[in-house]
Amino acid sequence: MASLKPYDRKLDYSYAPGLFTTIEALNNRPECVRRVLVSTKIEDSALQTLIPLCKEKGVRMEQADKALSRISRKENCFAAAVFDKQQISLSKSENHIVLHNIQDKGNLGTILRTALGFNYTDIAIIRPAADSFDPKVVRASMGAYFSLRLKEYDSFSEYQNEFRLRQFFPFILSGKLSPEEAKETAKKPHSLIFGNEASGLPKEFENIGLGVRIPQSDRVDSLNLAIASSIAMYVFSR
Amino acid sequence: MASLKPYDRKLDYSYAPGLFTTIEALNNRPECVRRVLVSTKIEDSALQTLIPLCKEKGVRMEQADKALSRISRKENCFAAAVFDKQQISLSKSENHIVLHNIQDKGNLGTILRTALGFNYTDIAIIRPAADSFDPKVVRASMGAYFSLRLKEYDSFSEYQNEFRLRQFFPFILSGKLSPEEAKETAKKPHSLIFGNEASGLPKEFENIGLGVRIPQSDRVDSLNLAIASSIAMYVFSR
Repeated sequence: MASLKPYDRKLDYSYAPGLFTTIEALNNRPECVRRVLVSTKIEDSALQTLIPLCKEKGVRMEQADKALSRISRKENCFAAAVFDKQQISLSKSENHIVLHNIQDKGNLGTILRTALGFNYTDIAIIRPAADSFDPKVVRASMGAYFSLRLKEYDSFSEYQNEFRLRQFFPFILSGKLSPEEAKETAKKPHSLIFGNEASGLPKEFENIGLGVRIPQSDRVDSLNLAIASSIAMYVFSR
Repeated sequence: MASLKPYDRKLDYSYAPGLFTTIEALNNRPECVRRVLVSTKIEDSALQTLIPLCKEKGVRMEQADKALSRISRKENCFAAAVFDKQQISLSKSENHIVLHNIQDKGNLGTILRTALGFNYTDIAIIRPAADSFDPKVVRASMGAYFSLRLKEYDSFSEYQNEFRLRQFFPFILSGKLSPEEAKETAKKPHSLIFGNEASGLPKEFENIGLGVRIPQSDRVDSLNLAIASSIAMYVFSR
């Protein structure tokens, strides 16, 4: 295999930085892991976890201090998985989270972690959007990334055409229902749809499904996207 | 006034970076604002908002490109308020959010914004903790900071001694109640108590008030602190 490059959206592989994230990759999606990089400064106890795990999964492990410091920039990073980028088809029968034009990688990672926490395992991302393969996303998800099905779409119509037979709940300021009211009407499968950090969902989503609004005081403009989507997932998962 | 220094915890003043945050400071806590810094690159329309506002509040405005670029580092920042650090006494009759040893400045700012969104206006921070005056906290709160009462305490006992006559709800993995059950028993005033990002609340909180646990799948270790506290505030504010 050629030498590892700094992460770039155009590459066909990406990096999962951090020991915990590497273990999640090996346990949950070993077929995607090309190899595991470790630092010469890694703790012995961490090595004693990684060595048998790599062996079991048939993945090569190698020391790569330079590549690791390039991947992690400022933060300490003692291990990383190099993994193949794969779009994974979403389940027709499961509930989905749809993220429309999400911009922030940290937000995206946090939302992935929360989604798994509330048993939403299928995530659609409508482009243009943050690169869901970016190591920052994978890191912010704390490895939840490797337990999810995640697929990018060029437009909401493309997504909608693939998943017609389900309920859509766009979260939008003009929404008529509270999350609890919407939950009462929700059946499986459904999709919770969220807009981006700066402007929310565009107006055309007013004509799609049942609009939901999270009640909040008028003393803040809006809730952070990761916060709003987490509250929605929590209520719908109760 | 002496020349402005890079932000430091020991200074008796701090910076509120960003146009929106500066306006929030001027509108909601003008008595704390020493002066307003603007960039020579600021938009005319923004100046046309700031000039009369500074005049009305009796606050001096000055061009300070160097100071602004030092305050904001990489990000664009066309205005900032220089404000006095003040610990503000919490209300005895209002509900509180208590953050025990919170570490991350971005998390803290996000929690402040969400708290205001759900009408929690009183925030106790138990040290050691992130510096609540740090410009990063103020920025992440998107100015909500200036609409809240916020006070740091050296220990939970110190806080508890000041606010004995209220219900305490520590959020802890061993908690027996769901947020909804806890909410049923909640009266005003109460305090929702959250532990830090890495380890949650220490064991001694098992003997304080009524423990609450946010139900989640066992596929993630725990929810992000800003997410968990937001879900709690949402449920309690319904």
